[in-house]
Amino acid sequence: MIKLVEVGPRDGLQNEVRPVSAEVKVAFLRALSQAGYAEIEATSFVSPRWVPQLADAEEVSRQLCEQPGLVYTALVPNRKGLERALACGYKRVAVFTAASEAFSQKNTNRTIAASLQEFAPLVEQARQAGASVRGYVSTAWFCPYAGVIQAPAVYEVTRAMLDLGIDEVSLGDTVGLAVPSQVHSTLQHLLDNGLERPQLALHFHDTSGTALANVLISLQLGFATFDCSAGGLGGCPYAPGASGNLASEDLVYMLEHMGYPTGVDLERLARASLELAAHLGRTLPSRTLARLQAGWQTAERT
Amino acid sequence: MIKLVEVGPRDGLQNEVRPVSAEVKVAFLRALSQAGYAEIEATSFVSPRWVPQLADAEEVSRQLCEQPGLVYTALVPNRKGLERALACGYKRVAVFTAASEAFSQKNTNRTIAASLQEFAPLVEQARQAGASVRGYVSTAWFCPYAGVIQAPAVYEVTRAMLDLGIDEVSLGDTVGLAVPSQVHSTLQHLLDNGLERPQLALHFHDTSGTALANVLISLQLGFATFDCSAGGLGGCPYAPGASGNLASEDLVYMLEHMGYPTGVDLERLARASLELAAHLGRTLPSRTLARLQAGWQTAERT
Repeated sequence: MIKLVEVGPRDGLQNEVRPVSAEVKVAFLRALSQAGYAEIEATSFVSPRWVPQLADAEEVSRQLCEQPGLVYTALVPNRKGLERALACGYKRVAVFTAASEAFSQKNTNRTIAASLQEFAPLVEQARQAGASVRGYVSTAWFCPYAGVIQAPAVYEVTRAMLDLGIDEVSLGDTVGLAVPSQVHSTLQHLLDNGLERPQLALHFHDTSGTALANVLISLQLGFATFDCSAGGLGGCPYAPGASGNLASEDLVYMLEHMGYPTGVDLERLARASLELAAHLGRTLPSRTLARLQAGWQTAERT
Repeated sequence: MIKLVEVGPRDGLQNEVRPVSAEVKVAFLRALSQAGYAEIEATSFVSPRWVPQLADAEEVSRQLCEQPGLVYTALVPNRKGLERALACGYKRVAVFTAASEAFSQKNTNRTIAASLQEFAPLVEQARQAGASVRGYVSTAWFCPYAGVIQAPAVYEVTRAMLDLGIDEVSLGDTVGLAVPSQVHSTLQHLLDNGLERPQLALHFHDTSGTALANVLISLQLGFATFDCSAGGLGGCPYAPGASGNLASEDLVYMLEHMGYPTGVDLERLARASLELAAHLGRTLPSRTLARLQAGWQTAERT
């Protein structure tokens, strides 16, 4: 069984230029909750001054639908965010840093070491409140400022996060430049240094069209947790028109037809994405979604 | 060294709804001829009654630029097409059939066996004129009418084409539904039955986002010839908005950064695609092209 973590409602919608109403977000989350995901990242408790698109985090969180087998997570950038998330009843939260020092400093205005120091009490507080913690390591292969990121840098930050009690670290190809040989090389380095597959998730971007090839090489190495975004929501804000997050539809299509069950119903997922796309008034980048929307399917294949 | 066969000028432009002038086609071909391809399929000598977009085949062919190491091919549906292609000086032509009987009959109005019978004298005539012959087998994994295509059907038609003197058969995932496990299974069957890697090319479509994953599994099996289309030109006419041919930019990006040299200069290729996109007045589906167009690159990566 492959575990998919749907990040569209948070990672995708926070990049929308035009504001999306809480009502539309709630409808999207309800539709996704019916699709069969193991985990959905619903929102982020970041300061509204940083990301005004997510100022409605409490309002949205109050209206989540419980589903058996489905865990909702919320991104928390700091202790204040954690407290808001816990107050909303989240049992799983996520923290984020980077493998690139330059990216960490430009993106979060602090060093990786400083982030890790802040995580320590935050993870402790979360766990005392009965919540588990997921971690994101962005720029795990390339940094837009520093270029190629070496595997040992990824290992160090990942190891440090796991040592703090974070139970799963998601490695992000934030700029979407990684190719399978590089994915293989970094993942093999992590395994060689004692990290275990269930401790790691892969978060690929499809900016160069390589996301599913990177998934394939990860599958071949035995990894089984992947992040994805409904419709491919979340184009990188630095590159208008460019594709960002790996589209959930493309991932589910490939995995299911390769014989890796995901639990996700492609048709329900696609309906959720198409309804949101109608609200956003634009086409989403998922290839499979466009194919399904065009009604182009064989008898055997949806 | 990986051999790339650029099919955009023929396979891509023949699907454009609005007519493209011979002048634009010639400019596109000239730009592509500078990019470093081993082979470019320039046009098709099909009857203008079938494909009016290609009625200018002679006019375009007269203006091709010779380049050392570059071979131009032309698609020929029949003896009349072959004679037109030879009169234009082509030293390599391509013929096409399908692995699916239903597709063959709907697409070319004849059975696979009838196509093979027609190929025999055509290949003979081409070779006597000093031209080599490439073959296309479409619907090698799925047929929009018949569903899943079994590997033995692919083997049979491919073997028959090779036996006629065709030197390379390109297997097409025409509807873009194949996933890597299926690609592996069919290719392994062909190898197990004595076909050799240099006799085969892979022609993937990115309709479900799986094209580069399918390339990866083919590379892992030792295959080294891939068809691609500049910008991803050639969306399937049955599915407006859906992506068709694997984009050359995406393929070149992945291969080069995995350490597989292609000879193709990504920047020149992208410039050719962007100039054509400007003439067509629309964005092309290549992920990498969109990224390059947005000027979004790291210092280390174009």
